[in-house]
Amino acid sequence: MASGPVDVTAETLRAMQRPVLYHYDPAFIEIFAHTTDLLRQVFNTRYDVVIVQAEAILGLESAVASLVAPGDKVLNLVSGVFGKWMEDFIVRYGGDPVELAVPYNAAIDPDYVRRVLQAIPGIKYLTVVHSETPSGTVNPVREICRIAREFGVISIVDTVSGLGSELLSPEDWAMDVAVAGPQKCLGGTPGLSLISVSPQAWSAMEGRAEPLRGSILSLLDWKTTWIEQQRFPHTPSVTEIYALESVLEQTLREGLESLVGRHRSSARAARAAVKALGLELWPESEEIATACCTAVKVPDGVTDRDVIETLRSRYGIMIAGGYGELAGKLIRLGHMGQAAHPALVVAQVGMLERTLLDLGLDIEPGSGVGAAITAFAGWDDATRTYPL
Amino acid sequence: MASGPVDVTAETLRAMQRPVLYHYDPAFIEIFAHTTDLLRQVFNTRYDVVIVQAEAILGLESAVASLVAPGDKVLNLVSGVFGKWMEDFIVRYGGDPVELAVPYNAAIDPDYVRRVLQAIPGIKYLTVVHSETPSGTVNPVREICRIAREFGVISIVDTVSGLGSELLSPEDWAMDVAVAGPQKCLGGTPGLSLISVSPQAWSAMEGRAEPLRGSILSLLDWKTTWIEQQRFPHTPSVTEIYALESVLEQTLREGLESLVGRHRSSARAARAAVKALGLELWPESEEIATACCTAVKVPDGVTDRDVIETLRSRYGIMIAGGYGELAGKLIRLGHMGQAAHPALVVAQVGMLERTLLDLGLDIEPGSGVGAAITAFAGWDDATRTYPL
Amino acid sequence: MASGPVDVTAETLRAMQRPVLYHYDPAFIEIFAHTTDLLRQVFNTRYDVVIVQAEAILGLESAVASLVAPGDKVLNLVSGVFGKWMEDFIVRYGGDPVELAVPYNAAIDPDYVRRVLQAIPGIKYLTVVHSETPSGTVNPVREICRIAREFGVISIVDTVSGLGSELLSPEDWAMDVAVAGPQKCLGGTPGLSLISVSPQAWSAMEGRAEPLRGSILSLLDWKTTWIEQQRFPHTPSVTEIYALESVLEQTLREGLESLVGRHRSSARAARAAVKALGLELWPESEEIATACCTAVKVPDGVTDRDVIETLRSRYGIMIAGGYGELAGKLIRLGHMGQAAHPALVVAQVGMLERTLLDLGLDIEPGSGVGAAITAFAGWDDATRTYPL
Amino acid sequence: MASGPVDVTAETLRAMQRPVLYHYDPAFIEIFAHTTDLLRQVFNTRYDVVIVQAEAILGLESAVASLVAPGDKVLNLVSGVFGKWMEDFIVRYGGDPVELAVPYNAAIDPDYVRRVLQAIPGIKYLTVVHSETPSGTVNPVREICRIAREFGVISIVDTVSGLGSELLSPEDWAMDVAVAGPQKCLGGTPGLSLISVSPQAWSAMEGRAEPLRGSILSLLDWKTTWIEQQRFPHTPSVTEIYALESVLEQTLREGLESLVGRHRSSARAARAAVKALGLELWPESEEIATACCTAVKVPDGVTDRDVIETLRSRYGIMIAGGYGELAGKLIRLGHMGQAAHPALVVAQVGMLERTLLDLGLDIEPGSGVGAAITAFAGWDDATRTYPL
Repeated sequence: MASGPVDVTAETLRAMQRPVLYHYDPAFIEIFAHTTDLLRQVFNTRYDVVIVQAEAILGLESAVASLVAPGDKVLNLVSGVFGKWMEDFIVRYGGDPVELAVPYNAAIDPDYVRRVLQAIPGIKYLTVVHSETPSGTVNPVREICRIAREFGVISIVDTVSGLGSELLSPEDWAMDVAVAGPQKCLGGTPGLSLISVSPQAWSAMEGRAEPLRGSILSLLDWKTTWIEQQRFPHTPSVTEIYALESVLEQTLREGLESLVGRHRSSARAARAAVKALGLELWPESEEIATACCTAVKVPDGVTDRDVIETLRSRYGIMIAGGYGELAGKLIRLGHMGQAAHPALVVAQVGMLERTLLDLGLDIEPGSGVGAAITAFAGWDDATRTYPL
Repeated sequence: MASGPVDVTAETLRAMQRPVLYHYDPAFIEIFAHTTDLLRQVFNTRYDVVIVQAEAILGLESAVASLVAPGDKVLNLVSGVFGKWMEDFIVRYGGDPVELAVPYNAAIDPDYVRRVLQAIPGIKYLTVVHSETPSGTVNPVREICRIAREFGVISIVDTVSGLGSELLSPEDWAMDVAVAGPQKCLGGTPGLSLISVSPQAWSAMEGRAEPLRGSILSLLDWKTTWIEQQRFPHTPSVTEIYALESVLEQTLREGLESLVGRHRSSARAARAAVKALGLELWPESEEIATACCTAVKVPDGVTDRDVIETLRSRYGIMIAGGYGELAGKLIRLGHMGQAAHPALVVAQVGMLERTLLDLGLDIEPGSGVGAAITAFAGWDDATRTYPL
Repeated sequence: MASGPVDVTAETLRAMQRPVLYHYDPAFIEIFAHTTDLLRQVFNTRYDVVIVQAEAILGLESAVASLVAPGDKVLNLVSGVFGKWMEDFIVRYGGDPVELAVPYNAAIDPDYVRRVLQAIPGIKYLTVVHSETPSGTVNPVREICRIAREFGVISIVDTVSGLGSELLSPEDWAMDVAVAGPQKCLGGTPGLSLISVSPQAWSAMEGRAEPLRGSILSLLDWKTTWIEQQRFPHTPSVTEIYALESVLEQTLREGLESLVGRHRSSARAARAAVKALGLELWPESEEIATACCTAVKVPDGVTDRDVIETLRSRYGIMIAGGYGELAGKLIRLGHMGQAAHPALVVAQVGMLERTLLDLGLDIEPGSGVGAAITAFAGWDDATRTYPL
Repeated sequence: MASGPVDVTAETLRAMQRPVLYHYDPAFIEIFAHTTDLLRQVFNTRYDVVIVQAEAILGLESAVASLVAPGDKVLNLVSGVFGKWMEDFIVRYGGDPVELAVPYNAAIDPDYVRRVLQAIPGIKYLTVVHSETPSGTVNPVREICRIAREFGVISIVDTVSGLGSELLSPEDWAMDVAVAGPQKCLGGTPGLSLISVSPQAWSAMEGRAEPLRGSILSLLDWKTTWIEQQRFPHTPSVTEIYALESVLEQTLREGLESLVGRHRSSARAARAAVKALGLELWPESEEIATACCTAVKVPDGVTDRDVIETLRSRYGIMIAGGYGELAGKLIRLGHMGQAAHPALVVAQVGMLERTLLDLGLDIEPGSGVGAAITAFAGWDDATRTYPL
């Protein structure tokens, strides 16, 4: 029930049992091509997509390394721990970061982005996190990236836990490089980065004085090998590709709208439960709460460790706490992938209640679960109806 | 969450992935022998044990077919649907059944057994169901079988869902033939019968004028092949044996006391939830409620089908209803194997609440779950402490 | 490489990883129904088919128990160990066996069957083994059963290892009850019997003075529950059904003609190898050699144990020896299921050569494999072309 | 049968079925720590080891990126395609490469390395490929690295397919950074780099004016997180770690000497087969042939594509061809991991024979296999004896 990696479906596990093929076996080439096609459907895009080895942080570093040349000015939007981390990448590859930051329980106002782009000349790239999992918040990426495009600024979007929690489209949202992960709302395995790249972004990479090539961090390598010739720049993780193919098939079979509806409805019920228990949400408003996890302030009288360790050791439920600067301040209920379902939200909230009672807090047993059950009125797996 | 077969653990599924071996491959012989040893530990017995192909009803038919000769008088104790079924087997193999029956929400009184055995001469066998899953009740098998032994009567016990829900021992309980199933409290797969056989029972089989041999129903065949020569009377289901070996290892790793404690504590919490919701238990008293499932009278205003189908179609939870004569009268919450855990009891009760609300019943959301959470006070996976 | 159970495909193993469902879950009902449909296609029949728990010997006992009433006269054709075993079943259920036997390296002549049926009045049933795996021979079942039908005699056919090694059809071949196994040429798991039943056979079962019902051995129970009402007479082995569904899908995807062609071509190459090595085939002629395994006389100077144990311990290859009366007289190369392929025939023959050299026999290394390679000229996996 | 990724064992596949854990779940931390311990045993080292996400080319790039600072002089030893590629990394990270090259069918002479180090002052690093898979050759890395250490030069060794094909030890061989892959001789999955790092190498990384930190390419990040604090610099590929743990356990259970013996004996038999067929080995002498694959010159009259595609399409065997500059010049028989076994070498050689016959070459069927069978005299799986 943690904030990713999450438990995968039995179907995904079965997919990983396929015999490991030599990567140039025609059967594997076909699987990889099929997976790429499925990914474009899940990303709802006609842009090129790239499947990069290793988890999404490599995808984000690759995006920055492939685009940003020494001296390039980059507007970095910071509303949480992950946004702040982007600065390290920008600096490493020689970029000149301009930061626009808000408190870590708030979201970036698109108007401010416009004002900064108007005020500061020469900004070439913009980096933004869609779903700030550590804070349990979302940024209005669609508005932000459209503004960036008005100014000819190339956007790099961390939508690692955003894909699947909101209906998005790189074209409609004007996202130039969007980096997602299979191990969050899609409920897949952590081992790949899923990236969509706009023509503008490819041009920017190719137009650099010294384009990045011949590196694990090079997105261009994938363009000149896989996209153009169906060859690989290096050996892909065969089994992870099997898992991804299956995860994407399951996603499309369920339907993107259902997937998103299921996550948003589960998040709404989780928030109802939290409030009914007298606990406080971490995000400053429910409007900016992400659909993939629910961040809750640590109640008075206990520590985040108390809650997390008791839940894990007594009841076998693993949830996440705060991260980096947020350590100790919050706990996070997870409802990603398979966990975005009433039975699992109820199980999690129920065990949280039991844990809070164990820790001596004065709560009414069943009150959180009761609120969740009420919020789930209208849910129907058979017709894929999810109350909002 | 149904009353078996139940979902198996990931470890059991993995065990079934072992390559299918030729049954006379030395590696398979070793696995089969190891599995037999483990089974004796789980049965807590020094008696011989037999692992018969196909689910436990074959084991029960085998026991009757191997023991009962034409004209043999058999006392059949009936407190539910499964008990009544035994009569068919007794009659088929030429036995002469004497029935002692109680209503299907009650248990057999050992005193009555004694009185019948005193009153009716010449009874050779006694058949009894330990855990009557369809009624959610248990019979006092220990007392009953000890009385049978006093009278020199061989007992045949259906403990298909009893093994794992109560600490038992064929010797201490005086059970001559005890038939269990892996797919109930042990949380295994449905495809084998697990049978312990006392020396008295072997003698009775061998002492028949025409002992049953050369049949799938012959327990003696297993004695003269596997037990005496490590050969097989027919090809075992290789993969089911892999599953069983793993299930027994998991059971012993957890410990029999923990397994039983987990089931009894879960059952107690489920009963608390049912009562808090204003529903009525099917068994006439909590003392005779089985630990493997909780039978609940169908509430007024709805049918069992309404409840079962809504739970399944809207929330993906499968529970069982009544069976045979009990059809339409009750529903059964399952807490066998992995499901004997607070998180899953709470999930199940929560979804039942949601379902009852959907069907228009006037219940307080969270009240059942709250009672379960309260009942689970003291549970601790880490130290294997289960409140009772 | 033994004579069954054989190693299953990765796809079959994956199918067994599906979560174990409650057998009355609608999803499982659908899987079982689908599996039944697939089985009829693989059996190439419009007759009813029954999937019985436990391996094929239970299916054979069920057929005899369901049909044969005390006093019924049964013509039992014996050309090997399995044929001889049928007599036990006939006797157990009160039948009056008439035996027609040939040496265990020969096949039954249909003309003799006709003569016996003409000569002996009142024969009601005929039992025959299609592929006598222990002898590596086949009987002309099509001719035999057609003759039986002329005489109004109901046939019971053990085609456990015949299905998949020859193109057959219960209707065209006039087989009334045909019992097959998934673990032989279909390459599946050992745990089920696959049975097709003609209308004549159903009538015979129903027409008995006391039809067999309420027993694990009753085929009629499957008719009145599953076939007529989609209910189960007892809990099926859920995971074995998953495996079977997958195995049948794989079989139909490959095509029955390809499956048979692959087996027959592999058997032909194996025989070529055996002869090139100067060894002797067990069957009296190649015409009556089965396609599923190649029985070879144990060469002078070594024992079957020497060969089998050396192959297993030094090179990890498990093959089978003789069985029952044939023990010590022959060894059997297996080419069933996945093993019916040049790479595996060559590997097996190569390791047999190495073993014979280890045991001091004077053979030319590579000569057996060379003959097999020559015999495989024209094989093509891509176009499913198999030389004959 | 290709030159990696290779087919993995059933045990490894099963390990990958474990439920995907949150990476900070205590159970996963324990698995990761255990895997690290096992890796040190397999590497036969007390040096620190690092398990990096993504296949070994990332490990090699990480080693260069972490060590080489702008202006550093690096001696790059080139005896094949992989050696030549190292130059790209050296140049990308600002290094100043000095190349010592031999033809791609030869090995580096350690004496030449000594002379270059004597002649050219200021060399800080040396890069060398242990097993040049594309050429089927090995370099005398032990001698080379010991010479480097005499001169105070830090060595970076690509032993991706070397680990498991030769008994090595980073300390004894004086390898400062050794990069191996699980998907070659260990028979694991392609998705991780396995790296051992000497204290000298850590010092060199830390001593750089601007040590590389905060990047997927930083080995130092692993030192300051995992090695020092048991935290992760980014999310590991959970399932790949499960696979690696299992692969290392299997390796240690088999024993490193056995693993190496099995590979070397299989390679020797494969070479015997190739020569018996009248084909020519690619390496200039058998002494420098690698144990993981056997490179063979493409015979006159056919192309590498002819051979590879016929083997794949007609007989389902996938082998590799030449790579980069070697494309079209050679084919490679693979005997890594499970394929390092007589049954699989014989199967592969047999199907190669069949393929060459199909393509019209004049070879004696069985002659290659016969030579391999002869070479395998003395092999014994049970006692782990492998002829050399």
